[in-house]
Amino acid sequence: MTTPVNVQRTASPKAKPDDATLKFGTVFTDHMFLEDYDARGWVNGRIEPYHHLSLDPAAAVLHYGQEIFEGLKAFRGVDGRVRLFRPRRHAERLVNSARRVCIPPMDVDHVIDSFARLVSLDRDWVPHALGTSLYVRPTIIATEAFLGVRPAANYLYYIILSPVGAYHSAGLAPIKILVEEQYARAVQGGVGAAKTGGNYAASLLASEEARQLGFDQVLWLDGAQHRFIDEVGTMNIMVRIKDEVLTPTLGGTILAGVTRDSVLTLLRDWGIAVSERPVTIDEVVKAAADGALREVWGTGTAGGISPVEELGFRGQRLIVNGGQTGEWTRRLLDALQAIQYGMGQDPHEWMLEVQAEDLVDEASRESFPASDSPGWSGHTHPTRDELPARG
Amino acid sequence: MTTPVNVQRTASPKAKPDDATLKFGTVFTDHMFLEDYDARGWVNGRIEPYHHLSLDPAAAVLHYGQEIFEGLKAFRGVDGRVRLFRPRRHAERLVNSARRVCIPPMDVDHVIDSFARLVSLDRDWVPHALGTSLYVRPTIIATEAFLGVRPAANYLYYIILSPVGAYHSAGLAPIKILVEEQYARAVQGGVGAAKTGGNYAASLLASEEARQLGFDQVLWLDGAQHRFIDEVGTMNIMVRIKDEVLTPTLGGTILAGVTRDSVLTLLRDWGIAVSERPVTIDEVVKAAADGALREVWGTGTAGGISPVEELGFRGQRLIVNGGQTGEWTRRLLDALQAIQYGMGQDPHEWMLEVQAEDLVDEASRESFPASDSPGWSGHTHPTRDELPARG
Repeated sequence: MTTPVNVQRTASPKAKPDDATLKFGTVFTDHMFLEDYDARGWVNGRIEPYHHLSLDPAAAVLHYGQEIFEGLKAFRGVDGRVRLFRPRRHAERLVNSARRVCIPPMDVDHVIDSFARLVSLDRDWVPHALGTSLYVRPTIIATEAFLGVRPAANYLYYIILSPVGAYHSAGLAPIKILVEEQYARAVQGGVGAAKTGGNYAASLLASEEARQLGFDQVLWLDGAQHRFIDEVGTMNIMVRIKDEVLTPTLGGTILAGVTRDSVLTLLRDWGIAVSERPVTIDEVVKAAADGALREVWGTGTAGGISPVEELGFRGQRLIVNGGQTGEWTRRLLDALQAIQYGMGQDPHEWMLEVQAEDLVDEASRESFPASDSPGWSGHTHPTRDELPARG
Repeated sequence: MTTPVNVQRTASPKAKPDDATLKFGTVFTDHMFLEDYDARGWVNGRIEPYHHLSLDPAAAVLHYGQEIFEGLKAFRGVDGRVRLFRPRRHAERLVNSARRVCIPPMDVDHVIDSFARLVSLDRDWVPHALGTSLYVRPTIIATEAFLGVRPAANYLYYIILSPVGAYHSAGLAPIKILVEEQYARAVQGGVGAAKTGGNYAASLLASEEARQLGFDQVLWLDGAQHRFIDEVGTMNIMVRIKDEVLTPTLGGTILAGVTRDSVLTLLRDWGIAVSERPVTIDEVVKAAADGALREVWGTGTAGGISPVEELGFRGQRLIVNGGQTGEWTRRLLDALQAIQYGMGQDPHEWMLEVQAEDLVDEASRESFPASDSPGWSGHTHPTRDELPARG
């Protein structure tokens, strides 16, 4: 953590929510990280009180969706220490997403540093209860004001933090998934592997229609043939058929999930047979009919490991494992939790401890003025109530 | 135009650019239209001085790309009157795009009214030179601050205006297009037919790579097989093979272009054979080799009719019509211009005259307070320089 960063602490810290009442992504912490991109490159990294962004109504992000994001978590261990789960992997994916939508690349170590600095400052916001965490949402948006279709010249990178409970309102209760055969999310050559807004906007209608039928999410099939399973709206998908775990290949249409990779690593550690290969919906349905479909689960940062109790397919409802959370699903849940909350070993060094430190660097204040940078049009204007003051 | 709308005129009108220097989408007029969506529905329609938008950094548009837009034009006729080109068609398409990404629908007549009111107020910004126009950019963005993936509860509809010259820097000079076989823009079941940001973000990398090879834009093929021509980045595509015009069917993957529809209507008026059907890239290439490919042009609001002089395909460069603008392309250009600038008949009633009128409705000021609406989180804060005053 060597990059000088100007820090402006809030003068009016907000009240922190009760761990027991935490939902997902509705409460935000006291501070945010910001950094601008202009002709000089990525400049003016800084931490400020959480405030609204002031964007020109012609800002490219609002018209052409040139934006990417990440989602990772900081956990408070049983030892009281705060750790980020696999920040390098998330930083690398952020850079990969950037490349796909022509956003200028960032240095991976610098990105990790930005995560750690902000979490360090707002470390008191990391909740304590098992199952809770501090969700970290890095975002890059195109801020240049123009209406021609081309990559923007100016960007804003920012990070906000949200203390969260379980992603699904049902908590760890198994979820119901509808196999989607009408709508498509992604296709080879598209942006399905990038964490960019358009993929999510494209998923809303199918998800809403599925919800009206009583399902929690949809299982996307490949966009070209509607034959292979791709991913669930906010998760990668894994199926256990007999004693083998199958999951779709990272072929360009699905997100390279960090939880997906972690789970595959754990399964291989345990000597379980794992195949990353194209998986047809037909073989999943046939396995369900034969009784060979033992478990189905989704993996994702927001929801962790989500047991799937039911697959809706062409009007049929395929019940998985009698509607109960399966043995391997439970084992994965426990193993991940042991690592994330510092209750067990961390053999793959997935956790990065976030140190408490004095981040206010008075020297850097001179070289990184807190006033609006002249170099980009989407500069930020804190409102009166949010005006920063030194802490 | 019966909806009461509160109007706050700018106290400091900007200098208007010289018609001769106009580019595309970089200069904006004095005012903007805004309207909020909350639990009450679409409320608080108003015109204010052009100003930055204040958005929560967790606003859904910045993360999940839930946003749509339109693009239409107002022309100053040779008689000095200002007319919008096919505003109803654009308003209908806005409503269709909204449905696809779960944005609450608006009333089509209300949308047309919002176009006309804003253009009326800023009518002095409509440039005079032939080939210039006032570009109208209606946009709807999801403003609710939350990080779960679902349709937002709050939206902002806004319109900005930009006096424009030719879209392509080369003006009416023919353009070069690269047939794209690696990347994909859209697939059946996706959002290709909606004017939503993600489609454009997904197009940037392919367009940049094509530009580096000396092409202006890419010709997208269907995402499933890369066999059928779909559309060009910002235009629909038409090919004249012998004496027939072919253009891809509106099958869900391409935008239902308003200029496309207008051109097809004109061609049919003239008794020219037109086929809307799936068109393979192979038949286009074969026609080029046989000398049967007489003309290729793109259609779009921003660029109008764009003659295509060259198609790049697998390293070959197929020159169309000796690199010259073809006969029908030229005739279409002239016919559209005659209608848009009021130089000829308007048999299909495509032009809607925008009346000059006093839009400040003192009575409505009471029922639509100018202060921030409490109902949505992405409310607007004019900066000090932009503070509105009554005109």
